[in-house]
Amino acid sequence: MSRPGADVLRDTTTALREILGERLSTCESILSEHGHDESWHRTVPPDIVVFPESTDEIAAIVRACAQRGVPIIPYGAGTSVEGQLQAVEGGVCLDLSGMCEVLRVSVDDMDCTVQPGVHREQLNHYLRHTGLFFPVDPGADASIGGMAATRASGTNALRYGTMRENVLGLQVVLANGEVIRTGGRSRKSAAGYDLTRLLVGSEGTLGVITEVTLRLHGLPESVCSASVRFPEVGDAVRTSIAAVQHCIPLARMELLDGAALRAINAYKKTAFPQVPTLFLEFHGTVSEVGEQARRFGELAEQHHGSDFDWAVEEEERNRLWQARHHAYWAAIAARPGGRGLTTDVCVPVSDLADCIDATIADIDRSFLDAPIVGHIGDGNFHVIFSIDPDDEREVAEARGLNERLIDRALEVGGTCTGEHGIGTGKREFLCREHGASVDVMVAIKRALDPDNLMNPGKVVPDAPG
Amino acid sequence: MSRPGADVLRDTTTALREILGERLSTCESILSEHGHDESWHRTVPPDIVVFPESTDEIAAIVRACAQRGVPIIPYGAGTSVEGQLQAVEGGVCLDLSGMCEVLRVSVDDMDCTVQPGVHREQLNHYLRHTGLFFPVDPGADASIGGMAATRASGTNALRYGTMRENVLGLQVVLANGEVIRTGGRSRKSAAGYDLTRLLVGSEGTLGVITEVTLRLHGLPESVCSASVRFPEVGDAVRTSIAAVQHCIPLARMELLDGAALRAINAYKKTAFPQVPTLFLEFHGTVSEVGEQARRFGELAEQHHGSDFDWAVEEEERNRLWQARHHAYWAAIAARPGGRGLTTDVCVPVSDLADCIDATIADIDRSFLDAPIVGHIGDGNFHVIFSIDPDDEREVAEARGLNERLIDRALEVGGTCTGEHGIGTGKREFLCREHGASVDVMVAIKRALDPDNLMNPGKVVPDAPG
Repeated sequence: MSRPGADVLRDTTTALREILGERLSTCESILSEHGHDESWHRTVPPDIVVFPESTDEIAAIVRACAQRGVPIIPYGAGTSVEGQLQAVEGGVCLDLSGMCEVLRVSVDDMDCTVQPGVHREQLNHYLRHTGLFFPVDPGADASIGGMAATRASGTNALRYGTMRENVLGLQVVLANGEVIRTGGRSRKSAAGYDLTRLLVGSEGTLGVITEVTLRLHGLPESVCSASVRFPEVGDAVRTSIAAVQHCIPLARMELLDGAALRAINAYKKTAFPQVPTLFLEFHGTVSEVGEQARRFGELAEQHHGSDFDWAVEEEERNRLWQARHHAYWAAIAARPGGRGLTTDVCVPVSDLADCIDATIADIDRSFLDAPIVGHIGDGNFHVIFSIDPDDEREVAEARGLNERLIDRALEVGGTCTGEHGIGTGKREFLCREHGASVDVMVAIKRALDPDNLMNPGKVVPDAPG
Repeated sequence: MSRPGADVLRDTTTALREILGERLSTCESILSEHGHDESWHRTVPPDIVVFPESTDEIAAIVRACAQRGVPIIPYGAGTSVEGQLQAVEGGVCLDLSGMCEVLRVSVDDMDCTVQPGVHREQLNHYLRHTGLFFPVDPGADASIGGMAATRASGTNALRYGTMRENVLGLQVVLANGEVIRTGGRSRKSAAGYDLTRLLVGSEGTLGVITEVTLRLHGLPESVCSASVRFPEVGDAVRTSIAAVQHCIPLARMELLDGAALRAINAYKKTAFPQVPTLFLEFHGTVSEVGEQARRFGELAEQHHGSDFDWAVEEEERNRLWQARHHAYWAAIAARPGGRGLTTDVCVPVSDLADCIDATIADIDRSFLDAPIVGHIGDGNFHVIFSIDPDDEREVAEARGLNERLIDRALEVGGTCTGEHGIGTGKREFLCREHGASVDVMVAIKRALDPDNLMNPGKVVPDAPG
């Protein structure tokens, strides 16, 4: 396929203006803003940006684009990191920031339905008097629609799961403009193919998510955060593996190496000791939290861990977790003008220590410096390279290290991406990881989007012919 | 499509004998045995039953059938209840009982890979010295392949999830005979479309599951079971809703009404008081279990519940849970020659009390008697009718009550089936529940099985033309 020509775009613009009036832009700066994400991947602007405010408008936009063979790229908060927003075939970027209403909350059923442009912090602010919270927390204040589209997770996944487990149902506009609902509000169902799980993680390539029904969780009676320092990264990793294997139901268990804490201290004006550290959080009743902490403390001691540095008050806890959530930007900021290239492998926990050891050895041999942070209890960690995207040597070096790390993960049954998705950046690795089953993904893509207009060039390989 | 003709079947038999030698049968009694499940749905025998012992054999069988346009019906333990095994278009039944090996267990990663014919009790027996267990437990001693295919759950789903949450990856033979692997061994992944979740619950209509990688769970330090009696079903239901809303992390919480316990007492020679009862199980450390029980006890007392009847020793606990697991057969046996027609709705928890109250009123008005049992913490319950399948009045009455119940569930955002699947029995309700999204299921079915040979006539509507 090729980018739509000028005539087609003029005609499309006219059609979209009829639907949206002034909520449409072809201004260079707006186009450029919408053609990139938070990563090193280069800006590839769309031809038109639209700002729909309802599912009906989105359906009308999709129909107008389908009639004219114009691609559609959904845009949430722009916080993805694998090139998901590059308009590689041009087309119309659907900016969903105007669809930011929480549509309903059921405290009794612990669920809610939101529009796709609702941000995760906005949702938790909305829920603040209900006794409930939504746990999935990628580093950025991402949109819920975008998080569903990339199957996001974050620091709470250890206990509360990822978007895979926390999306109960979706409303989606398909490539032909039809609006469907998937899933439902019951906690489980065996009724037909699991379209909800198929669409979660499909990165806009099978349809546009226009509503998300989410599972919520009760705020625990007691929440305590803490950090524990270790002499070596390996000690921290081995402690966390032991905690998983001892089934301590931690809510959060995050690894930060010395380099990560150095970057954070510089960026956030904090004073964390710049040594390998686990950031922890315990949820439960007061006695459960005490028991979890006691059991974890015993394991940490066996692996040369320090005493707990407690963060009990909400403000202290927020400071700790904000530091963790900002690690990506802190690492990038460590180098003026740098852009982030981050790895995202996830491996079986028993292979994690070897995988991280080999990765540290790789980084030590490299001319690039890069901190390591990780959702270590899930076997998922990131090496964050801050590179100059115009420096070929740096790009090649970071990509080479990423590739070695991915091969290492795939060898042990792991994945090339725990939570960032495939986008344009990991399509070759998708094939390496999933082999012949990628043909099945392509067959599904063709069945649901025969003209390849939904975020083309992402996730699955380009269909031949 | 129509059933394969005699010539085609002769040719198919010859081809399959070359692959399988004597592991093939066309004997009437074997065919008949493989043409029905545990329910009232009538026997529709396949033309041939084969007994493969490897994935390669299954791939060769599927290719041989595909070349000749012969349907394939995978058969695990024969314990489904929605007509999933009826050979409505004839064809070859793949009896997977010869593929019953546990292929690997990783204690450190708490996962395992099994062949599809492994039964759930066999797996837990195999795991007995590892400190791990596999929690998903439908009433029957089902096969793991069948449980994955129907997205089964059971009494432990409340805390440990269903097959949706506990299958990490699959090996599958597709309709064209190709063998693919989906998922992997990492706890999470954002790599491409979630084919694992698409295939879990597809009931053999998209491919044959030939290996299953499962998440396992650590045996808790302490396990205590108990039962609590209530004056009315509504009191038990309201107690369980409160327990869910108070986030008490129960492992099991099962409702049995007086009729269910009467049937169980007759069938199992037990002496449970024949009044509405909750069967409970608490998992955790000793102090956690104590705290959960204390909190639950307070809620039960508010709803007129009795004191706990404890079952602490393993043998006592097994007696309790075996009674629960055998409720289906007990209810059927209550009437000589009866066959089971069971409802399976699942609704948001806040709608559960009204839904059950209305259902009890329906049963009270009916000439049929039927016990109620339920995975009440998930909002899922069953009314078990024991009917004479040849008595049109009984069939119509039970089906009518089932339909009213399903409509009631769908009205509140629930599902027609929490765990039994669609099979042939609920295809009309799938459309009622999922509307236009069933077209998407049909598109996927066509893309992966264009000749409609994989368990045809199940789950999705017959493709027109």
